[in-house]
Amino acid sequence: MNSADKIYHLAIPGVQQLIPYKPGKPIEELEREFGLTRVIKLASNENPLGPGKKALAAIQSILKDMALYPDGSGFGLKHALAVKYAVESDQITLGNGSNEILELAARAFLTPGLEVIFSQHAFAVYPIVTQAVGATAVVVTAVKYGHDLEAMLESVTEKTRIVFIANPNNPTGTLLSQTALESFISALPESCVCVLDEAYFEFVSSAEPIDSIDWLKTYPNLIITRTFSKAYGLAGLRVGYGLSSPQIADILNRVRQPFNNNALALAAAEAALTDSEHLQQTIATNARGMEQLTDGFKNLGLEWIPSAGNFVLVDLKRLAQPVYEALLRKGVIVRPVANYGLPNHLRISIGTHEENRLFLKALTDSLQDV
Amino acid sequence: MNSADKIYHLAIPGVQQLIPYKPGKPIEELEREFGLTRVIKLASNENPLGPGKKALAAIQSILKDMALYPDGSGFGLKHALAVKYAVESDQITLGNGSNEILELAARAFLTPGLEVIFSQHAFAVYPIVTQAVGATAVVVTAVKYGHDLEAMLESVTEKTRIVFIANPNNPTGTLLSQTALESFISALPESCVCVLDEAYFEFVSSAEPIDSIDWLKTYPNLIITRTFSKAYGLAGLRVGYGLSSPQIADILNRVRQPFNNNALALAAAEAALTDSEHLQQTIATNARGMEQLTDGFKNLGLEWIPSAGNFVLVDLKRLAQPVYEALLRKGVIVRPVANYGLPNHLRISIGTHEENRLFLKALTDSLQDV
Repeated sequence: MNSADKIYHLAIPGVQQLIPYKPGKPIEELEREFGLTRVIKLASNENPLGPGKKALAAIQSILKDMALYPDGSGFGLKHALAVKYAVESDQITLGNGSNEILELAARAFLTPGLEVIFSQHAFAVYPIVTQAVGATAVVVTAVKYGHDLEAMLESVTEKTRIVFIANPNNPTGTLLSQTALESFISALPESCVCVLDEAYFEFVSSAEPIDSIDWLKTYPNLIITRTFSKAYGLAGLRVGYGLSSPQIADILNRVRQPFNNNALALAAAEAALTDSEHLQQTIATNARGMEQLTDGFKNLGLEWIPSAGNFVLVDLKRLAQPVYEALLRKGVIVRPVANYGLPNHLRISIGTHEENRLFLKALTDSLQDV
Repeated sequence: MNSADKIYHLAIPGVQQLIPYKPGKPIEELEREFGLTRVIKLASNENPLGPGKKALAAIQSILKDMALYPDGSGFGLKHALAVKYAVESDQITLGNGSNEILELAARAFLTPGLEVIFSQHAFAVYPIVTQAVGATAVVVTAVKYGHDLEAMLESVTEKTRIVFIANPNNPTGTLLSQTALESFISALPESCVCVLDEAYFEFVSSAEPIDSIDWLKTYPNLIITRTFSKAYGLAGLRVGYGLSSPQIADILNRVRQPFNNNALALAAAEAALTDSEHLQQTIATNARGMEQLTDGFKNLGLEWIPSAGNFVLVDLKRLAQPVYEALLRKGVIVRPVANYGLPNHLRISIGTHEENRLFLKALTDSLQDV
């Protein structure tokens, strides 16, 4: 071992073992690799309509102020969120994406020796933030690709400090009922923080209303995380937030960097909150696109997991990697999910009508090719 | 204690004691508090010329893509930095401001029981990132407001894992010679990571060339941190970076969030690197402004600490807080530094000629008022 490699031994044990999150392949990367000019990316659950007009206008209006630090307290955005959700500003923690709220929770509450519970097939960031601080991950086997809340509750020990729940779950799209979820949270010991990841809640059918914010009044150990990266179409800006008791928000805000959100992001998110037209178009486009894709799967004789999000897992009934690669060669990026224990599935983000059509055509051809 | 307050006991010990960084007062906050309409902020070492044209143009060109995740690998910006500084891309870690690189170093290398050395009057974030992971801060008494490298070296024990050095130092503006600095780094044990914070290096007179990047070839335990928030005028966007051995960069990148820099920030920073005209204007404006301010101090019979940065500490020879408050009432925000152990000083960021003039007038009046 040379001298430089000895540095690895200086890293804390969790970091020595850490394998970082692998993002969806960027469009530019595929263009560079294959010399392609037209690439469709349905790999990262982004909003196919792009950002809304109000968000873009807000960015324009403060571009000239880019030499000034952002408001580290996020006064304006927190106020707007507080009004929208009928909570107090001191219950809000702003994050560089909701990913950062997940990380802040881990850094604030976990030490080596403590345990973290999450479900099989749940979001890949839960094990990563757990590992980065050297805590112990307890993975509970999924039921029908979704959370087995009963088994998760049985896994709670006195060492359990955090439970992560994704609802809807990414990448499977499964949805827990609000009744089952509140019953689970109410049964958790006070010493266990429940992080309820609702990154996709805006896409849930209005027939199944999401009540979780009401639960904050009862459960001081609950953190709800949400994001502007999905339904609001601002993934490039990195804005998410946590809603919780003021006590948990105080703790998370201590760990938060002073200027974790950039100034353009704060302004755009605040404006996006008022853009209900863009949000409604997004939700409608998603519903139509989901039907288009699942109709396409049916025509191809493929099965899929019913999804409450803006993506769908299709079951190829064979190893998905060669199909994923064939799609790449045709300029279509989707998401392999072997790292989620699902080697036969691909996760497809819902695109525009045209993107969905081109994807289905490329999938049809790829299934014949490989 | 009510049930919700018990949550505090769940936080890790370091976080229970943590007091977060207090940013300079935002302009909007002062406007809200005092009903002011014209506010001058010389409190956060921002670039008084604003962002450069090339950075703004780069933002415009990708605004429409804001619904897409940023390139998590930062390919373009890292490539541009690698070319500019003649290093490899795998030696670079991009951060949400260089603040995040300081934090990543702490999170990657520190556990409770390990020690961190930094100087009295050095940047406030060093103790915060140390405390957040529960490591032990060893503060070495300053000499003439600057780092006492000899005493810092004597403070190294087998438990020392990180030494933070700011050069120039913030908030005092003191500069270490390159010879003394390399001699210090060469004497550190390999088990000790040296974080050399060069947030203000662009402002150092060209008569004192900065050689630190050359040292990376020799010292695998060195991390140099730099930022786009100061000379490049992009504080609102949050972009900084670390330069190090590939091994340390690998470690820091494992801890880094997948999308810690937003897409507009990456594009703007890459463009700003090519805007040498804006950089030169910034440096020239700073040099003139420094002369203007120190001439003003001389006329007022005040002393100051000679500064290599874009800010200067003035010694009021009495408690500075009442003068700070009097300045606020006149719509001028500067930075009190009592939290740095300097209760009689104020830190003034160098502004435009007009801002400096208005500040000196307000200071003259405030010194008479209080």
